Amino acid sequence: MDAVKLVELAREGRPRAVARLISLVENASPELRAITAELCTGPRRQPPATVIGLTGSPGVGKSTSTAMLVRAFRAQGKKVGVLAVDPSSPFTGGALLGDRVRMQDHATDSGVFIRSMASRGHLGGLAWATPQALRVLDAAGCEVILIETVGVGQAEVDIASLADTTIVLLAPGMGDGVQAAKAGILEVGDVFVVNKADRDGTQAAVRELRNMIALVERPWKPPIVTTIASRGEGVEELLVALAAHRTHLVGSGELEGRRRARAREEIEAIAVAALRGRFAYLHGDRRLDTLAAGVLAGDSDPYTAADELLSAL
Amino acid sequence: MDAVKLVELAREGRPRAVARLISLVENASPELRAITAELCTGPRRQPPATVIGLTGSPGVGKSTSTAMLVRAFRAQGKKVGVLAVDPSSPFTGGALLGDRVRMQDHATDSGVFIRSMASRGHLGGLAWATPQALRVLDAAGCEVILIETVGVGQAEVDIASLADTTIVLLAPGMGDGVQAAKAGILEVGDVFVVNKADRDGTQAAVRELRNMIALVERPWKPPIVTTIASRGEGVEELLVALAAHRTHLVGSGELEGRRRARAREEIEAIAVAALRGRFAYLHGDRRLDTLAAGVLAGDSDPYTAADELLSAL
Repeated sequence: MDAVKLVELAREGRPRAVARLISLVENASPELRAITAELCTGPRRQPPATVIGLTGSPGVGKSTSTAMLVRAFRAQGKKVGVLAVDPSSPFTGGALLGDRVRMQDHATDSGVFIRSMASRGHLGGLAWATPQALRVLDAAGCEVILIETVGVGQAEVDIASLADTTIVLLAPGMGDGVQAAKAGILEVGDVFVVNKADRDGTQAAVRELRNMIALVERPWKPPIVTTIASRGEGVEELLVALAAHRTHLVGSGELEGRRRARAREEIEAIAVAALRGRFAYLHGDRRLDTLAAGVLAGDSDPYTAADELLSAL
Repeated sequence: MDAVKLVELAREGRPRAVARLISLVENASPELRAITAELCTGPRRQPPATVIGLTGSPGVGKSTSTAMLVRAFRAQGKKVGVLAVDPSSPFTGGALLGDRVRMQDHATDSGVFIRSMASRGHLGGLAWATPQALRVLDAAGCEVILIETVGVGQAEVDIASLADTTIVLLAPGMGDGVQAAKAGILEVGDVFVVNKADRDGTQAAVRELRNMIALVERPWKPPIVTTIASRGEGVEELLVALAAHRTHLVGSGELEGRRRARAREEIEAIAVAALRGRFAYLHGDRRLDTLAAGVLAGDSDPYTAADELLSAL
């Protein structure tokens, strides 16, 4: 099917067109360029979707919290998109669906699009594919898009640059404050949630988190909310915290700044991907292999090898 | 101090020269090029250091396990390097040292180099800096280098491409198998360790892990070892598993293949970093800003913008 037609169907909110477009994004289809052009320069919904990222270590309850937020936004009559990004599985070629089971309440709700996405390949996978998938969900009329991402590490940093608001989830007894800080979460969290708040150590976790947040100098002081997502407890407080951050983003001009930074990174990621493609095209893997062998043999060093790679561009 | 002189001092095993060189790597010093050339093309120790990666979620006991392995290799009379990489903190500009406290046994042991390293910046931070730091430790005579990395996610994939052998650590009750699989660990682990094996659920975790490993088709079947790292229990079994994987790597030719892939990725990472530098030099942030504003306004799309960025190269 023709790209423009597919985008038109997605704009009408047709689930199969949305699913098909996101598959084309995942598979880096050659049609993606025409699709992206149509999505960017064709008619667009205003204002664009609110993008909320959820991140945290395995076991803190990301999927349950995502489901809780989906219910809350649906109760407000909002159309919701969920993108479960699994940046850690470049091999399997598809995200596992275990977590999605809990989302089955929404499987028949036409106001919710849920999609797991594996971002294959190394550099810039998430940075490259996620903005395109967000654009598809936005075109399909999603007013709120939740990006759920696994793990600590680079994923947090990436999600923070993709979302308007980043929720960092923790659970009591999942590791001490030093480890939380090591994960770089203090700098990327706009709202902190201590989930599983019926467990021992909740208040200690909140206190410790508060002390650590106080050390980071930011114009926005991230609130800490306690929830028991499995029972929906704390969702109102979480919505209040999200709305407060939204007000800050709009009032300070930071929302516009974040969106511009996002577009900048996407452009750069596409340019870098194109260049990497040219390396392969120009030299084939064999040339890079020869350069690598030279470095291993002690005949060259990687900087000189990189120069050789670039000189043929 | 002159780069060649600094490398000579590192080759003599002088701790301050080693520390200074790794700082130059971390800070992407302009002298790095000369240093890397000297490290690569000057006299090199044969065979090169064995590189072992340790990874896993926060709280599984990575640092305690690293310390256990350091003791074991020291007992064999081997010189050991430890690189604690924190890929998740591009903001703080320095890894926190909380975990390192447990390493204090070795603080006065001249046969151990321990270094925390924060890999700043987005794309390719770890891919770019870690090989250079490994080279410094190798030059300093380390026969075994342990890379400890925080978190799940992209870091695992990166560490798997940097290490000869990747140890994936788990602990009972830290999240179920589906979550482990989501983290992509099944594909990157060469040896699995269920640590904190005095806890309930150890045998269940081993069983579940074994079932999941059986689903992945690989020429090497990763062994599962149980340890209580805080008491040094299980270290002999872990050493046996590491040695077995080593034998497989050498026998199958995979070691050579991994090393070549490593060199290839390093060359590519340097080339991409150089190109990104050229974007900034050619256009300044303002040009990229203008392109981003055009995409946000619906006048352009990111592919067209990337083309414009590249056309000026």
